[in-house]
Amino acid sequence: MKHDSSSAGAPSPRGRRPGHRDTRERIREAARELFLADGYRDVTMRSIAAAAGVDVALVSYYFGSKNGVFSAAMSLPVSPIELLDVALEGDPDTLAERLLRALLAAWDDPTVGVPLQTAASRAIGETALSELVAEMVEREIVAKIAERLPGPEPYERAAIFVTQMSGVIFHRYLLRVEPIASMPVEEIVRRLVPSLRSTLEI
Amino acid sequence: MKHDSSSAGAPSPRGRRPGHRDTRERIREAARELFLADGYRDVTMRSIAAAAGVDVALVSYYFGSKNGVFSAAMSLPVSPIELLDVALEGDPDTLAERLLRALLAAWDDPTVGVPLQTAASRAIGETALSELVAEMVEREIVAKIAERLPGPEPYERAAIFVTQMSGVIFHRYLLRVEPIASMPVEEIVRRLVPSLRSTLEI
Repeated sequence: MKHDSSSAGAPSPRGRRPGHRDTRERIREAARELFLADGYRDVTMRSIAAAAGVDVALVSYYFGSKNGVFSAAMSLPVSPIELLDVALEGDPDTLAERLLRALLAAWDDPTVGVPLQTAASRAIGETALSELVAEMVEREIVAKIAERLPGPEPYERAAIFVTQMSGVIFHRYLLRVEPIASMPVEEIVRRLVPSLRSTLEI
Repeated sequence: MKHDSSSAGAPSPRGRRPGHRDTRERIREAARELFLADGYRDVTMRSIAAAAGVDVALVSYYFGSKNGVFSAAMSLPVSPIELLDVALEGDPDTLAERLLRALLAAWDDPTVGVPLQTAASRAIGETALSELVAEMVEREIVAKIAERLPGPEPYERAAIFVTQMSGVIFHRYLLRVEPIASMPVEEIVRRLVPSLRSTLEI
């Protein structure tokens, strides 16, 4: 109940007493507006707290990290960046396959995939959101994969790789083009990994 | 001037007497509704003519082919299928490169690319339109590329290939993710063609 008291003076969205849910939601909405206006990099835990009118410790308490607030602000049940971080760990030789499998596992899972599809569909039509998603892809996905690649021009190779992965998202989850939309995971892996591996190496 | 006389009884495009433009537009709108309701395959020149209340010869006169009506109905200044047909012709060894170059040339050209981007963006959000686009991709793009591929399972290989090409559309033209969005054509070709070629062969 201590957070009830910390937000005591604030008006409740539902007209009852202020509480956890109201505060959390207020932070989430303030973060969403900030991210859409300023992009990912320029938003801080502190600027989110200020916009929501709460202490920065409360933002940490509810969401852990900036990436956690971002996922909540985008209505994503898990952080795509954390899924990526897990898939990045391991043998460099199977990096392409691990990343493809992680993508398919997340987007094929209805509890994760449906919110991701909603976010991606909206991003195509809304300029502020598409700029934010593009920035996330550039800074958080491409950049992190590039760090794992030996050799010259890792960023460009990672960008082409992510472009090809996005083709899978586009055809399997957004447009639902057959046979990709209902192709078994093992078949996608078998057909796509050799080409994804060559992309990482060129 | 001979076209003036050949269309003597028809309404004027500029909105004075009824004429070309009105009839053409009526056919276009009827076709759009039909395609969205019934998909690409089940719509015929005859069913379009019937829906627009005109003779089928008039549909041919204005649009040439079903694919021509389709492009007009989707507000595309050129038919992507015709561009594909041109790129398909030639040495099988450079098929991947020709298709990638054709895609980049069309989407990089503002007069063609902007309407394509609009159509693709809308398709993601509208179910009837996304089903229609998916059907076009399956039947008109994947199937035609598959016809050119020797060896087993050409359709699956073509589908993976087109998925990778769509990743380029998604990142370069819809989300505008850097460095893909402003990468020179020659660099995209150099970085992507080896992987696209391997996809066609797996």
